[in-house]
Amino acid sequence: MRNLLLTIRYVGTAYCGWQVQANARSVQQTLQDAVEKLVGLRENVVGCSRTDSGVHANMYCCNIRTSSQLPCEIIVRGLNAYLPDDIAVLSCREVDYGFHARYDCTGKEYIYVIHNSNIPDPFMANRCWDFNKKIDADFLDMQAQQFCGEHDFKAFCSAGSSVQTTVRNIEYFNVKRNGDDVILTVCANGFLYNMVRIMVGTLTDITLGRIAPDSISDIITSLDRTKAGVTAPPQGLYLNRVFYSEVEKNG
Amino acid sequence: MRNLLLTIRYVGTAYCGWQVQANARSVQQTLQDAVEKLVGLRENVVGCSRTDSGVHANMYCCNIRTSSQLPCEIIVRGLNAYLPDDIAVLSCREVDYGFHARYDCTGKEYIYVIHNSNIPDPFMANRCWDFNKKIDADFLDMQAQQFCGEHDFKAFCSAGSSVQTTVRNIEYFNVKRNGDDVILTVCANGFLYNMVRIMVGTLTDITLGRIAPDSISDIITSLDRTKAGVTAPPQGLYLNRVFYSEVEKNG
Repeated sequence: MRNLLLTIRYVGTAYCGWQVQANARSVQQTLQDAVEKLVGLRENVVGCSRTDSGVHANMYCCNIRTSSQLPCEIIVRGLNAYLPDDIAVLSCREVDYGFHARYDCTGKEYIYVIHNSNIPDPFMANRCWDFNKKIDADFLDMQAQQFCGEHDFKAFCSAGSSVQTTVRNIEYFNVKRNGDDVILTVCANGFLYNMVRIMVGTLTDITLGRIAPDSISDIITSLDRTKAGVTAPPQGLYLNRVFYSEVEKNG
Repeated sequence: MRNLLLTIRYVGTAYCGWQVQANARSVQQTLQDAVEKLVGLRENVVGCSRTDSGVHANMYCCNIRTSSQLPCEIIVRGLNAYLPDDIAVLSCREVDYGFHARYDCTGKEYIYVIHNSNIPDPFMANRCWDFNKKIDADFLDMQAQQFCGEHDFKAFCSAGSSVQTTVRNIEYFNVKRNGDDVILTVCANGFLYNMVRIMVGTLTDITLGRIAPDSISDIITSLDRTKAGVTAPPQGLYLNRVFYSEVEKNG
């Protein structure tokens, strides 16, 4: 048996998210279908995290334990031939048999794309959040620094999650303007359910005057979801990078 | 009566092109439908050129003669509310009543996007040409210089066109690599039917060894379509900029 680490990329618009669900098309199931067509076996593909419906991935990691002996290069080419054109396999390599895409993940980086204009961009439809009120990106960048470090992020977690702890460590959170787009980049050792989207919505609520500037630290301390901002819509969110220390050692 | 110059942007994937056709969805008709909903009148929208099915526009110009007295700002906002999300109106302004989007056009710039990789990019599906063989962009840039200047481009025109002259003047033709993408940019006073796509296909045929390097000038002189290369697929082509001198004067 081999254990294969795949990196993939997908446009999430047509999917209910990563995770297999009854009566909905998931990225996981679509990938498992392609694997089955290629290697003739129904293998379970283990993902690095759930993603919400409509969320995208520039880079997503998953692993497959399989008895298939196909060379990695053939697996990449073969899966891309069977996958629909909104999902692509970027790379495949053999890793330690014990490697687990979710449990061994040491960090993830998300980006969130806001199209900050009165004029929508057809090429970004379903790939950004159209937000009209002018954002001061430098100001929000300063505000976002309150998120950094290790905190209990219970106030930034949607109901319905069953995690053991709501403490996470945010390594960096940057807000940058690029023309009409405002790009938010956040990296942490892990994220709670809807955490990035609620942090983004809290920052935009500051722009809208719904939340006072410099109050993010107090909102964190409150542990109260109702004190934080709206949940920004899913279509602006991209899983951008996934980090592993084990793979670096065994890759 | 006013004459309004609109700039629009569209993803061409879902359309048969700009021009109204029976039994197919065109950008022109979709825009005319939105205008009718907004101003209550069925106005003819005059485009700057035909575009092929699947071709995109970062910027496309058209004009509408209408008795509507709606302010330009309301027209932009109103049309964007009625248009599907793969078409957007970028701007609207009143121009000289005699202005004609096609007849008064003094030049156009197209870009052509080649994704030059074995791995497809899901975010570029239907928005580029996937071309696997490694392209030497600097070499093709040098080759492309043979297109520049005033020539009879009959060899680079598909059958079915009924133009008075096949002489056109190419102002510049650049080929640049940007990561896995190769971007071709060409500007001329006008283009023949499929001209950009045949020029691109001729350059990639040089990469494939089907056409000899340094033979583009001879192909132009031959006036023979069979000497030129393949017609590159439509999904990599973007109308990028449209030039007018009249509008600059009257805008």
